[in-house]
Amino acid sequence: MAGSSYGTLFKLTTFGESHGTAIGGIVEGLPANVSIDLNVVQQELDRRRPGQSKITTTRKEFDLVQFLSGIFEGKTTGSPIGFMIPNSDAKSEDYEHMKDAFRPSHADFTFQKKYGHRDYRGGGRSSARETACRVVAGALAKQVLSSLGISFSTYVSQVGTIQFLSKEFYPLAEIEANAVRCPNNQIAQQMISRIEEIQGEGDSIGGCIQCVIQGVPIGLGEPVFDKLHAELGKAMLSINAVKGFDIGSGFSSLGMTGSQHNDVFLSNGQTETNHSGGIQGGISNGMPIDFRVAFKPVATIMQDQYSIDRNGNKISMEAKGRHDACVLPRAVPIVEAMAAIVLLDFYLRNKAIHL
Amino acid sequence: MAGSSYGTLFKLTTFGESHGTAIGGIVEGLPANVSIDLNVVQQELDRRRPGQSKITTTRKEFDLVQFLSGIFEGKTTGSPIGFMIPNSDAKSEDYEHMKDAFRPSHADFTFQKKYGHRDYRGGGRSSARETACRVVAGALAKQVLSSLGISFSTYVSQVGTIQFLSKEFYPLAEIEANAVRCPNNQIAQQMISRIEEIQGEGDSIGGCIQCVIQGVPIGLGEPVFDKLHAELGKAMLSINAVKGFDIGSGFSSLGMTGSQHNDVFLSNGQTETNHSGGIQGGISNGMPIDFRVAFKPVATIMQDQYSIDRNGNKISMEAKGRHDACVLPRAVPIVEAMAAIVLLDFYLRNKAIHL
Amino acid sequence: MAGSSYGTLFKLTTFGESHGTAIGGIVEGLPANVSIDLNVVQQELDRRRPGQSKITTTRKEFDLVQFLSGIFEGKTTGSPIGFMIPNSDAKSEDYEHMKDAFRPSHADFTFQKKYGHRDYRGGGRSSARETACRVVAGALAKQVLSSLGISFSTYVSQVGTIQFLSKEFYPLAEIEANAVRCPNNQIAQQMISRIEEIQGEGDSIGGCIQCVIQGVPIGLGEPVFDKLHAELGKAMLSINAVKGFDIGSGFSSLGMTGSQHNDVFLSNGQTETNHSGGIQGGISNGMPIDFRVAFKPVATIMQDQYSIDRNGNKISMEAKGRHDACVLPRAVPIVEAMAAIVLLDFYLRNKAIHL
Amino acid sequence: MAGSSYGTLFKLTTFGESHGTAIGGIVEGLPANVSIDLNVVQQELDRRRPGQSKITTTRKEFDLVQFLSGIFEGKTTGSPIGFMIPNSDAKSEDYEHMKDAFRPSHADFTFQKKYGHRDYRGGGRSSARETACRVVAGALAKQVLSSLGISFSTYVSQVGTIQFLSKEFYPLAEIEANAVRCPNNQIAQQMISRIEEIQGEGDSIGGCIQCVIQGVPIGLGEPVFDKLHAELGKAMLSINAVKGFDIGSGFSSLGMTGSQHNDVFLSNGQTETNHSGGIQGGISNGMPIDFRVAFKPVATIMQDQYSIDRNGNKISMEAKGRHDACVLPRAVPIVEAMAAIVLLDFYLRNKAIHL
Repeated sequence: MAGSSYGTLFKLTTFGESHGTAIGGIVEGLPANVSIDLNVVQQELDRRRPGQSKITTTRKEFDLVQFLSGIFEGKTTGSPIGFMIPNSDAKSEDYEHMKDAFRPSHADFTFQKKYGHRDYRGGGRSSARETACRVVAGALAKQVLSSLGISFSTYVSQVGTIQFLSKEFYPLAEIEANAVRCPNNQIAQQMISRIEEIQGEGDSIGGCIQCVIQGVPIGLGEPVFDKLHAELGKAMLSINAVKGFDIGSGFSSLGMTGSQHNDVFLSNGQTETNHSGGIQGGISNGMPIDFRVAFKPVATIMQDQYSIDRNGNKISMEAKGRHDACVLPRAVPIVEAMAAIVLLDFYLRNKAIHL
Repeated sequence: MAGSSYGTLFKLTTFGESHGTAIGGIVEGLPANVSIDLNVVQQELDRRRPGQSKITTTRKEFDLVQFLSGIFEGKTTGSPIGFMIPNSDAKSEDYEHMKDAFRPSHADFTFQKKYGHRDYRGGGRSSARETACRVVAGALAKQVLSSLGISFSTYVSQVGTIQFLSKEFYPLAEIEANAVRCPNNQIAQQMISRIEEIQGEGDSIGGCIQCVIQGVPIGLGEPVFDKLHAELGKAMLSINAVKGFDIGSGFSSLGMTGSQHNDVFLSNGQTETNHSGGIQGGISNGMPIDFRVAFKPVATIMQDQYSIDRNGNKISMEAKGRHDACVLPRAVPIVEAMAAIVLLDFYLRNKAIHL
Repeated sequence: MAGSSYGTLFKLTTFGESHGTAIGGIVEGLPANVSIDLNVVQQELDRRRPGQSKITTTRKEFDLVQFLSGIFEGKTTGSPIGFMIPNSDAKSEDYEHMKDAFRPSHADFTFQKKYGHRDYRGGGRSSARETACRVVAGALAKQVLSSLGISFSTYVSQVGTIQFLSKEFYPLAEIEANAVRCPNNQIAQQMISRIEEIQGEGDSIGGCIQCVIQGVPIGLGEPVFDKLHAELGKAMLSINAVKGFDIGSGFSSLGMTGSQHNDVFLSNGQTETNHSGGIQGGISNGMPIDFRVAFKPVATIMQDQYSIDRNGNKISMEAKGRHDACVLPRAVPIVEAMAAIVLLDFYLRNKAIHL
Repeated sequence: MAGSSYGTLFKLTTFGESHGTAIGGIVEGLPANVSIDLNVVQQELDRRRPGQSKITTTRKEFDLVQFLSGIFEGKTTGSPIGFMIPNSDAKSEDYEHMKDAFRPSHADFTFQKKYGHRDYRGGGRSSARETACRVVAGALAKQVLSSLGISFSTYVSQVGTIQFLSKEFYPLAEIEANAVRCPNNQIAQQMISRIEEIQGEGDSIGGCIQCVIQGVPIGLGEPVFDKLHAELGKAMLSINAVKGFDIGSGFSSLGMTGSQHNDVFLSNGQTETNHSGGIQGGISNGMPIDFRVAFKPVATIMQDQYSIDRNGNKISMEAKGRHDACVLPRAVPIVEAMAAIVLLDFYLRNKAIHL
């Protein structure tokens, strides 16, 4: 109940603080006897790591994952996969000033009040560093899903107010073609300029990530409470800085009537339009799944701010450290990882409904 | 894993199809030795039932809930509360034409493909009738939360493109003052006119519900995966026809920078602004929680439509039955019920983190 | 967490007190599109019901189960199956004297202290009447398991100190051939005489139930914590009055050495002996599963007893009501039901470990 | 669902094979802001480790636990505690001969059939080495329980047919006074002699462990399925080589009548006798909890045995390696750890039933 686990049959449990010994986790339920390429897992981690481009933080964390169990002679055994990512470049002294301070719109205040004791260094357990563990589990899940013909296209579709309106599936190479991970190069350049501008101001900016999933078999998702898009929504909203989620037509469906919005069936069971976003009644219908995730401008900015300490005294907080002005590019593999975790879980759950 | 349960310590499990013998459920984890007014539960159900106003369907379902266990001499015993709502006015013959047909943007197709066998009458398990059970559990939860000082203000904030932009807490009487459950009477009248217009066209229309929760103690929500707003998001997205969810500043945060968005602390631990929507790091911070839920225009319309049958043959579906052109007014108590279920669950979970 | 649910993929949740309106439950995860004979469920209930023979209580409870959902046109839909058994012949006034009294070795004292409020009539939630719901779920599970070639032989193997030492599989007809449900008719008559003797003394007596399961496929059970026999043990120990459980050689293995106890493999993968009781490393090995369940002499006796009331005052409790001197014969279908619930759950769990 | 987790609010998830890189786990739900002495955890591990006395295996595994998260400045933060125990002295080549062989009464056969792929070295995931992780979690739980006044007395009460009949609570020093961990020194010497005899024969022998728990508050345990003794039973039966469990009077209750067996209340709510073993209706009643765990003679013996390989060919297996002739002494801390895990979980669950 402590909230550090995700999934039911395919399950990730994570541990670790940003400045402790290590972060890591246990992956349960990866099907047995499946070949796994551990290098591919590391490559996914590299897409998330800081310092990968000029528009990400200059902090260098190499995030080398070590696998401790569950894979033998290159194949899964069905046993849990333990892994850890040692923390490096952790300058704890950078954070001594945070011991008694509550940074605005961070989790310092709520953690202190909830637990009465916290690892204040760099956000501790509330740090987005934890998401590296999700990327590991997601990279394992994606290898299994890939063998089932399920593939992902995840990209930045909005930075601030600069939008790239699309629900298309773009190949990875087009997404990776620029630092902001937007497959439209022209818009990508505008986004990069905007991020650099914000960076120069010591401020931060939010945006949207679009995820499109192809090849999902019909039937994934459970009716009533565990609808596929409800679980995708929870998975996305559990990522640091996410404030919104919609699926298919989403919020834009409000401008339509039912007769415009209904997806007419073709003879082959596909639909003419896909306002449903690939999910009907909480269950995948075989059309591409598409959803959108909104990230707020992150709370850490390179500007001095006023705040309070543990005694309610007003304090001035000096900007310190090295941070991302826009986390969207690095959040792309996290969104994709969480989507993969959800899909593999539902794939396995779906196996149990027939004899 | 069958998806018919919600919650961990406070848990609702539901059963029932729209045209079977009854719907019902089991509520587990309602704290022991608490006085419960069962009439209040019925009143909440009455807010959800069809036929309550001229802008809801004329179907008459009285939805009388019967409690079977767990409450003794007016107080909870800590044992599970079983309840049922008999199905009445179920004209099964109205649905014979649906046996082999897949209605557009309904769950007929996905249920048939997933299970190989379904109760096709009126949507069966996928019918929104199931949400009556959620209202029962939510009404129980709200009575407990109310004794803790937690209160809800839930209202329609958008119908089609007609918006009532507000994050204020309105008393129930103002919300109930009109048929559409929007506390601004002028905008409410526009919404009602629009719904009647759509009704006249045999079409349907979507909208948004705003929920504001006051009095939430600091500390509810678990970090990492079970963030409070992630679970609220899942709860809302599990409601029929919901396509989107955002919390606090939500999607509108994309037009702001971090320095504008950060909520500055006051000496008393409250914040000047509340872009966080009452939740920071996934944990309630004592400020009002506010979130928004987007409902698509519902799939059932009073217009003939083309579709396919189980063999992929094109068919024409004649409009039949009595349905809501806009479900938003009736969805208000459902949204509020799900929010209450989530909050009580997290309240109980929070008790277990200290000795 | 309230303890009223059993199972993971195949799951039973129950509600109800012995003298409330009804008992009942929800069965989730019964595979879809399977034919179910509801009469067979009622027959199993009849094996558990009071008043069926001269050695069971003369209370008449007909325990008629009503199914409310999840079965359509004779087949499962994959949706939850709600059911209820109305309480009849409930003479609440028989129990008024129990309002403030704690019966020895019952749950009156612990329920009162734990919850602060309880339905004291006839044990309320702690009554063994709840096990009727388990029989319903077990009877559904057994129909599915039967189609997989899995069959059960459950019988009384000990009453007091009268033992029928056997791990054989007996057909149902031989077990049902006498009132005590022991397939050895000679020993059965001794058991019956002993029960009648104890009955005459107004006392009670315990015993053992043996369960033998044939046709279990290799591979059911999860390693480490959820070993098949660990879950069977929990399932049995959750039945009222059970005080002990062992599997295969069990407690009698203590007189053996490893070289005597090890089950030597045959070429076909079967074993010469079956001291393992059909389970090795927590996983079924294809040999018959056999285990033993010990029931204490039940606490309700027809003798006056001393006890205390809620204020700690010594009181004399007069023997009242109609009760079983030996619950073993009626517990046979309960043991079998719980075993079936566990096996179907592990059967479904095992499906999720391979792609 | 993969079976590698135990507990609900207090939860241990483990990973690791006997000859992989490391074993380890994640402990969730340890209450926040509690002081923890990590040295005490290591001491518990030392009680379990091989090579500690002349009657345990001469394998040297130092089992040094490394904590990776969740404890900051000597106190818990409420965040998950990740830990690992590197594998040392792992002579993988000792096990090459096991690659295709199925050892009698081990889990080789069932793992191979279930998963299709296994780490065959030394039992891999099925090795009792995994129980070291349980001892770590149990040692953390015991520190919390100790602060609540709950204490454990766990000892060997039977080796082969040599019995020490007792349900007394013995201080740790008396238990640790001899190599076999039986607090009666005279019987202990007989047990040791018997083990040495069996050791000399290259054989193995089983026995019983008795666990007595004092200071348990009234009210732990959930009615119906999650009865306290049902969960204790599952916890014990999940330990390698355990074949039986009973609580209080257990199997010996069969020689008694109800009038003899009922525990008469004293005015203070305690009972004259304690045949219930401290639990009534599945809920602790404040009396000492006592239960018994039966371990079979372990399957690994130092004698040549016949068996089969993966193709069903008969093979002769030469005795190899260094093993325990009797695991009972080393199992004492494992039994105690699992009991502590169960009790802390139910302690936390009990907090959630009242507002």
